[in-house]
Amino acid sequence: MFAFLKRLLFGRPLPTSRQKHERLPKFLALPVFASDALSSNAYATEEILLAFALAGTGAVAWKMALPITIAIVALLWIVVLSYRQTIFAYPQGGGSYIVTKENLGILPGLFAAASLLTDYVLTVAVSISSGVAAIVSAFPQLREDSVALAVLAVAVVALGNLRGLRESGALFAVPTYSFVLSVGVMIIVGLTHVATGTVHPVHTQFGETVKPITGVAFYFLVLRAFAGGCTAMTGTEAVADGIPAFRPPESKNAAATLVIMAAILGFLFVGVSVLAQTYQAVPYEGGVPSVMSQIAQGVFGRSTFYVIIQMATAAILILAANTAYQDYPRLSSILARDRFAPRQLANVGDRLVFTNGILALSFFAAMLIVVFHAHTSALIPLYAVGVFVSFTLSQWSMSIRLIKLKQPHWRLFSSISRFGSVVTGIVAVVIGAMKLTAGPRVHLGPISLPTGSYIVLMLIPIIVYILMKIHQHYMDLGEQLRITEFVEPAPVKSTAIVLTSGIHKGILETLEYARTLSHDCRALYIETDPSETPLIRDRWEKFGLGVPLVILESPYRSVIGPTLKYLEEAKKERPDHIVTVVLPEFVPRKWWHKILHNQSAIFLKLALMSFEGIVVTNARYYLRR
Amino acid sequence: MFAFLKRLLFGRPLPTSRQKHERLPKFLALPVFASDALSSNAYATEEILLAFALAGTGAVAWKMALPITIAIVALLWIVVLSYRQTIFAYPQGGGSYIVTKENLGILPGLFAAASLLTDYVLTVAVSISSGVAAIVSAFPQLREDSVALAVLAVAVVALGNLRGLRESGALFAVPTYSFVLSVGVMIIVGLTHVATGTVHPVHTQFGETVKPITGVAFYFLVLRAFAGGCTAMTGTEAVADGIPAFRPPESKNAAATLVIMAAILGFLFVGVSVLAQTYQAVPYEGGVPSVMSQIAQGVFGRSTFYVIIQMATAAILILAANTAYQDYPRLSSILARDRFAPRQLANVGDRLVFTNGILALSFFAAMLIVVFHAHTSALIPLYAVGVFVSFTLSQWSMSIRLIKLKQPHWRLFSSISRFGSVVTGIVAVVIGAMKLTAGPRVHLGPISLPTGSYIVLMLIPIIVYILMKIHQHYMDLGEQLRITEFVEPAPVKSTAIVLTSGIHKGILETLEYARTLSHDCRALYIETDPSETPLIRDRWEKFGLGVPLVILESPYRSVIGPTLKYLEEAKKERPDHIVTVVLPEFVPRKWWHKILHNQSAIFLKLALMSFEGIVVTNARYYLRR
Repeated sequence: MFAFLKRLLFGRPLPTSRQKHERLPKFLALPVFASDALSSNAYATEEILLAFALAGTGAVAWKMALPITIAIVALLWIVVLSYRQTIFAYPQGGGSYIVTKENLGILPGLFAAASLLTDYVLTVAVSISSGVAAIVSAFPQLREDSVALAVLAVAVVALGNLRGLRESGALFAVPTYSFVLSVGVMIIVGLTHVATGTVHPVHTQFGETVKPITGVAFYFLVLRAFAGGCTAMTGTEAVADGIPAFRPPESKNAAATLVIMAAILGFLFVGVSVLAQTYQAVPYEGGVPSVMSQIAQGVFGRSTFYVIIQMATAAILILAANTAYQDYPRLSSILARDRFAPRQLANVGDRLVFTNGILALSFFAAMLIVVFHAHTSALIPLYAVGVFVSFTLSQWSMSIRLIKLKQPHWRLFSSISRFGSVVTGIVAVVIGAMKLTAGPRVHLGPISLPTGSYIVLMLIPIIVYILMKIHQHYMDLGEQLRITEFVEPAPVKSTAIVLTSGIHKGILETLEYARTLSHDCRALYIETDPSETPLIRDRWEKFGLGVPLVILESPYRSVIGPTLKYLEEAKKERPDHIVTVVLPEFVPRKWWHKILHNQSAIFLKLALMSFEGIVVTNARYYLRR
Repeated sequence: MFAFLKRLLFGRPLPTSRQKHERLPKFLALPVFASDALSSNAYATEEILLAFALAGTGAVAWKMALPITIAIVALLWIVVLSYRQTIFAYPQGGGSYIVTKENLGILPGLFAAASLLTDYVLTVAVSISSGVAAIVSAFPQLREDSVALAVLAVAVVALGNLRGLRESGALFAVPTYSFVLSVGVMIIVGLTHVATGTVHPVHTQFGETVKPITGVAFYFLVLRAFAGGCTAMTGTEAVADGIPAFRPPESKNAAATLVIMAAILGFLFVGVSVLAQTYQAVPYEGGVPSVMSQIAQGVFGRSTFYVIIQMATAAILILAANTAYQDYPRLSSILARDRFAPRQLANVGDRLVFTNGILALSFFAAMLIVVFHAHTSALIPLYAVGVFVSFTLSQWSMSIRLIKLKQPHWRLFSSISRFGSVVTGIVAVVIGAMKLTAGPRVHLGPISLPTGSYIVLMLIPIIVYILMKIHQHYMDLGEQLRITEFVEPAPVKSTAIVLTSGIHKGILETLEYARTLSHDCRALYIETDPSETPLIRDRWEKFGLGVPLVILESPYRSVIGPTLKYLEEAKKERPDHIVTVVLPEFVPRKWWHKILHNQSAIFLKLALMSFEGIVVTNARYYLRR
């Protein structure tokens, strides 16, 4: 029954031999790895405008949106150029963790890993929360259920990924391509309107009051808008992490996919920002209606096409989480293989995916969603810091590697990486500073806290510390378990003690068995009711197979106390013996029969579990009726 | 820490040798065994008046209260007379179960036991709910918390009983004697007022409308009032059940206590009914203010004495539950010793009480309170049927016994018992019929059900069925485990299989040990990653102590499946061998290290637990760091 349900949900188990074939062609790899990056078009322009809106600066926002967008796209291309080199240098997967660890050392590598791990969890929480927000603005009666809907969406995406890589590629291709196509068409139609001068702006002014803003305050505002827009770049690192999932030649295909992705992303981002300016879209608090939806309405009116764009946006936002579902389990499995994370994260599940990583990501993301009540505006300020930290570390590492290896054109290539690293480093600081406590307050029972990048900045070192503690445990373990030389084993001396509550057929079989364990075999009986002892003693003499019976008084009627005390003494008496404790138990046929038997055996078993230095043997006698 | 808390709550454990001394003198036995019976004075008169009030018959209620009360007191004395004989006939404790089983057979005995068990649970639920109702009518702001308060009260009474018999006697003496004294004073002062003609009735009329009632309907009503008043007799059987708790000479002391109790009960009941008539008390829906409180106010005005009576009533009502706490654990331990109930109910706990019985009673009573929302009016209709069934069976059994034994005056004594049995039998039928669905509806989620004696009448046969099923299991068990003759044991042939996930120091010790178990010792390795196999094979050859290593492929990466299959085959191959499965496990030093290790060992352990026909040996290796 359980097996049938499992098969229905996840499909039949796949043999290890099929692992090699679970590879993606480019047209499926693009939606799998790029949905996160592409989906950020749904909110990146809005984030830029929002910075100005909150300052009440008026129409200057429309003027500044395009330059800031272009600056971010330029940054994108720098990162893409230096990541292309990483892809060719690390065909086995060039995630920031691997690249940084190899070229800068373990600690920076762990910082890169921790940054990415937090960012992946945030990707899932942010994408799904904003996807649900899009659905809820269409169906306001669902507003009360947004947290439940978001958790459900996490479960659905997790399920898709638990089924395996290829299937999820196919599953996610349709929404991604629909989004790219429909937004692309919108941009082209919109630009045609601009060219023919038939634009009808959706708003006549930006905000109600206009505060004049100049000098430092203005540049500060531009930086803040830039930090907001940088969310567009999250997800860019996905391709470099996932090279082994591409069809061979892996690196070439991955590099091509990365460039295609950046081209599409750049085109859509610039296009949306141009249209936001010409159609004069305005960001609203709470994000409804979104800038994207205002533009779509401006271009198409409330037509079918408008609805299509809204639906494609909601779909890609929810599925953008999928990128994190590719990367988080892969990164955590690499950490596990390097003994920085619990080993089970490296387990390959029934469907040849890292089941435990998928489950861990889903759990953390669902927790974030619940704690932050699925409010995108509370989650966004935590977002993007982590990914820029990893950009910085990864590119700096690449520049060092390129200088060391001195392959052709190394001067040019290392300069690109160095430049990219410095720029993304500055951006990381800018984002961290601008979003420090930028989010709304979140209420956790009696506590109310502001949200912002400080949470992530505190979390990253904590995660690094945990990873290092885990590593240390595994190293200690290895040292303690390592066999360094062959030692001729000493002959084992053994004492066997059968714990008994009386004498009956079940015990008899156990006694016969216990006699084979050791010549020094005895039975231990704890006397809780003195009136029964003579009978037991008498029957033992008759049927006890000659095994000596030790009877211990227990004035307080406890079985566990005297037993442990006796075992302690037996161990002390013969320190060179292995003491085997034999626990006879009979197994009833029906589950409810179990509650009819003395539960003290269970407590005894638990007590023995933490009693050091003995071997515990369970000998069971099966009842037939 | 836990041990300290336990000692603080329950006191230090008592040695078995002190069991004999935990006996009660009469003045402490009376409150312990009589608080239930005496406390029913708080509601018995009200129940009589209520039957008339619900029919809207007016002042006839006041006229009928005294004759009905006198009829019930007469019934009480019949039962007391025949129970005195039981006390002398069964000095070891003459509960209905024992008496009925011995003289009428097992099945009637179980019916008596089941009736009493349900009634004891109801005693606790009813007494505590009405005690809490008394508190709540004084502090209406607690109304929302009555269920929580009632459950808390159950816990407090349970705690007192878990501490042991003698202490609980002392604990409960004060409220019981306070109640008896204060109500006694009230009756005497009230009667003085009657004698001196200075009574000021609290009401001038009984109810607002008066329906004339005659003929059959009138007798029906009287029966219904009689059935209500019979709740006064619950608890009468307590003394006969608990004879061994009295100081020697047990029977004589118990009989004297029974008579004293009946005398007090009769005096209080008649007194309250007389005053209810002369002070013209009226029962209200919901029971606030109660008849008792109206009388107290009529006699004393709103003086300090009025408050004392109210408080003593609340206290004795809550503590009345104590009688059930004496009897339920004792009866269930007797059932357990006769193998009709789970054996652990016969366990004597740290403080020489039947701990498990106390816990079971508390659990069921708390459940009843929660399900019935602590509404006394919903619980009362279920009450008293059970106890009258047991009166009937017990007295009929006594009459049969007396006829059989033909001791002096057997004709007279057996007639008393026979007469008592017939009368209580008729009353049982009357109560059952009158209260069949008399209670208000109770809502359980979407279901709404009327309450009434039908619940108990359905429950009793179900309990009897369960008791019989339990008995059958224990009998089957005994038959399977009984050793009938001495059989020379055949020499044990043994195969040992060590489950291993690789080779390290921890395994090494286990291998040495396993080699002593059997000449046919091998190790089993499940290959989940073929690339690791050559290394394992190589190291095993070097360090494996010559134990052959079986390597099994697992194309689907499952460890449990191939292991179980192999064990199945090993068992089939050598049906005359005992197969010992040795599970090496290492025990980390810190609790959080546990989550860093492959959990598959835990699942393997669980799977082996239900794998029939093997011996499972846990060999542990303790990490030092």
